[in-house]
Amino acid sequence: MKDFISMEVLPKQDILSYVKRANRLATKGYQSFQRQLFAANLFFEPSTRTKMSFVVAERKLGMEVLDFATDQSSVQKGESLYDTARTFESIGANLLVVRHPEENVANQLAASLSIPVINAGDGTGEHPTQSLLDLLTIYQEYGYFEGLKIVIAGDIKHSRVARSNAYALSKLGCDVFFTGMQKWQDDRLPFPTVSMDEAVEMCDVLMLLRIQHERHDNQYHFNSMSYLQQYGLTTEREAKMKDHAILLHPAPVNRGVEMDTSLVECDRSRIFKQMENGVAARMAVIQTLLDQGGQRNGKTINQRQAIIG
Amino acid sequence: MKDFISMEVLPKQDILSYVKRANRLATKGYQSFQRQLFAANLFFEPSTRTKMSFVVAERKLGMEVLDFATDQSSVQKGESLYDTARTFESIGANLLVVRHPEENVANQLAASLSIPVINAGDGTGEHPTQSLLDLLTIYQEYGYFEGLKIVIAGDIKHSRVARSNAYALSKLGCDVFFTGMQKWQDDRLPFPTVSMDEAVEMCDVLMLLRIQHERHDNQYHFNSMSYLQQYGLTTEREAKMKDHAILLHPAPVNRGVEMDTSLVECDRSRIFKQMENGVAARMAVIQTLLDQGGQRNGKTINQRQAIIG
Amino acid sequence: MKDFISMEVLPKQDILSYVKRANRLATKGYQSFQRQLFAANLFFEPSTRTKMSFVVAERKLGMEVLDFATDQSSVQKGESLYDTARTFESIGANLLVVRHPEENVANQLAASLSIPVINAGDGTGEHPTQSLLDLLTIYQEYGYFEGLKIVIAGDIKHSRVARSNAYALSKLGCDVFFTGMQKWQDDRLPFPTVSMDEAVEMCDVLMLLRIQHERHDNQYHFNSMSYLQQYGLTTEREAKMKDHAILLHPAPVNRGVEMDTSLVECDRSRIFKQMENGVAARMAVIQTLLDQGGQRNGKTINQRQAIIG
Repeated sequence: MKDFISMEVLPKQDILSYVKRANRLATKGYQSFQRQLFAANLFFEPSTRTKMSFVVAERKLGMEVLDFATDQSSVQKGESLYDTARTFESIGANLLVVRHPEENVANQLAASLSIPVINAGDGTGEHPTQSLLDLLTIYQEYGYFEGLKIVIAGDIKHSRVARSNAYALSKLGCDVFFTGMQKWQDDRLPFPTVSMDEAVEMCDVLMLLRIQHERHDNQYHFNSMSYLQQYGLTTEREAKMKDHAILLHPAPVNRGVEMDTSLVECDRSRIFKQMENGVAARMAVIQTLLDQGGQRNGKTINQRQAIIG
Repeated sequence: MKDFISMEVLPKQDILSYVKRANRLATKGYQSFQRQLFAANLFFEPSTRTKMSFVVAERKLGMEVLDFATDQSSVQKGESLYDTARTFESIGANLLVVRHPEENVANQLAASLSIPVINAGDGTGEHPTQSLLDLLTIYQEYGYFEGLKIVIAGDIKHSRVARSNAYALSKLGCDVFFTGMQKWQDDRLPFPTVSMDEAVEMCDVLMLLRIQHERHDNQYHFNSMSYLQQYGLTTEREAKMKDHAILLHPAPVNRGVEMDTSLVECDRSRIFKQMENGVAARMAVIQTLLDQGGQRNGKTINQRQAIIG
Repeated sequence: MKDFISMEVLPKQDILSYVKRANRLATKGYQSFQRQLFAANLFFEPSTRTKMSFVVAERKLGMEVLDFATDQSSVQKGESLYDTARTFESIGANLLVVRHPEENVANQLAASLSIPVINAGDGTGEHPTQSLLDLLTIYQEYGYFEGLKIVIAGDIKHSRVARSNAYALSKLGCDVFFTGMQKWQDDRLPFPTVSMDEAVEMCDVLMLLRIQHERHDNQYHFNSMSYLQQYGLTTEREAKMKDHAILLHPAPVNRGVEMDTSLVECDRSRIFKQMENGVAARMAVIQTLLDQGGQRNGKTINQRQAIIG
């Protein structure tokens, strides 16, 4: 595929080969592209982790980074996203990374551009590179996916991470469950639900989601403390998890809401490991797309030189 | 000249040699500077195309880019533009690119700094690098300028692009005409006016301008549809253009206002080609100014190494 | 020390060796790091000089720059500074530069991160790299510190620069004095005060401070002209300074307030020299911290290759 848009449409074999490439990049070093290549990062929503992770991945591969700050751009003059993206293609971008508050934006851009497009989060749609780094973290832990019990907990309805992970993990043979407030469940995702107390005892991986306050209507009063007690990971619940079970969270954590603040860096937490893995995951995607592009156009992007052994 | 400020003052021979250098850079590859050189980009107005185009040009020439975001800067503490610019010179900038809402700003900075200054748009003054990329696009099409009929259409009064192009094209021997609403004509520019219906039948190049809503007083009601019918490029008018005639627009296009949206990417449109040419045009300016600087100072900036054959 | 946080705690010998390293970097060229290293610049307050100076220093040493724009970041989602900083560490930053409106922030981050932290200004606490560039500028002028009479003038209470310099200069054997409005004196700093008229006649170095209007409560009316007459450097006062005495200001200057605008670039002004020296000062700090880090981790960051002879 030219682009990296959705875990829903990506075949199982492709997902697995992305995971394995990311794992090699994380553990065995990497090479940069031999040609000067430009990546355009278009972020229409706030981001630290994802955006900076892409920048690090791009620079490690030797790419030039075009950083698009929407508030200083011609979007202020009413320019459409399509025209903005075509502009970057015209001035020489070899790759477009896009985050946008609306679903399907990356998909639509991909269809109209000849350069590869990576979806860095589209509304409540998907967030496939976040999913890939989660998969990598699980793979590093267990070495396989088949039969693992994964519980995804929390604000599923507003979470593109939940969606991408549910699609990917079930394709890879995991048993996927949801837990959380009834009103945050998503009818489009046909996975069984369990209580948080059931979840902690049965799971191999507990994926907590961030409560996306910024995506909610203000129709209810939210009480952090009672949420933690009913639906979150308290220290009591954490103590009931299997010895080998691990804890994931895409971050930023609402400390004391989704989980007790003391658990953010506990032994079974892989939260900062996930961030570290985000760089390798994004490198794997970029490398795969641009190598394909190189072959497609008969160019030699895939002739890379050694930077780190 | 030390700087690149205005098409009005640049001699014809200099303009031509910039166009030819830009054409070589666009078609025959380029070399990067051998020394580490820093470009400071100071944009006091929103910009995607021009700013990113400068970044690509600078990076292709191997320059380091200092990106000045006014909203996070000491301009917030009341620092003057002169002090800001001198700061960049002091910390090692070898080149200053400036866009500013006031006319003559680039000119004044150039006079007080020892490093080269490039005008990336000063109020309703000039936008000479945009003009250079337009000239390059015309040159690639026709191979000459003498006797070409160029019609510049639309919001001339608020357009620094119109001003720079009118000066440059008439010096190069083109026959320049204006068309558009009477109140948007500019008394300072003594060129004949025609109607849009006359324009499309006679021109070799139709340069549509962007309506600069952000520079207008809100003293009138603007009706996009009736504007397009009276003054814009409809599909009916486009059909009456000469076979070889081409269509330019500095973008972003107000789709359905200056032109029918279906014409943005029509056969005679060179709009995305213009963007592509923007990189080569800016490289030509940077290379020329820094090579001169190198010779003037007895340094060897102009000893460049091959990056792309 | 792992970090560069405070002139108050830095031993005299360390300060001196930073000054001498900075002087070598300013005059004898430099080498870049051989490994690909990432610097994360986290600026939570507006800055031109300091931020851009760090970028130039980092790029001259061959480092990759991660630029953190708070307004486009997850800080918008309520993420804490600690979590933001740990994120940068996780994704591969080898160095953190932080400016923050609260005192002690850099200190606290340094204690919780394993990578070196540089304090680029913490509230009204300290600004040690600004101090280092001031020291370098004095050292280049006199070649020694012992016995020099330094007067620090103006808004001492709100000035982290004053604090860092008072600590550093007195450790190095200078005689430090303060001058300015009584209410802007700082009880924590036990240095003698003089009038501005006494100051100009006795000092070897006059360090003017910027009046930090943005840090003041709006409880008084401020009259620039009368301030300049009573407390600032008028041309009359400047004429009474010793022949060899020099004038420093951390900039941006409030022209016509702290000093007569004609004196900003007078013969004894080293204001733009200070900016130039800022790059070498920051390079010295970065090089020192990362070389130590390299030795600590048994890595070879300190094997650098020649860029400029």
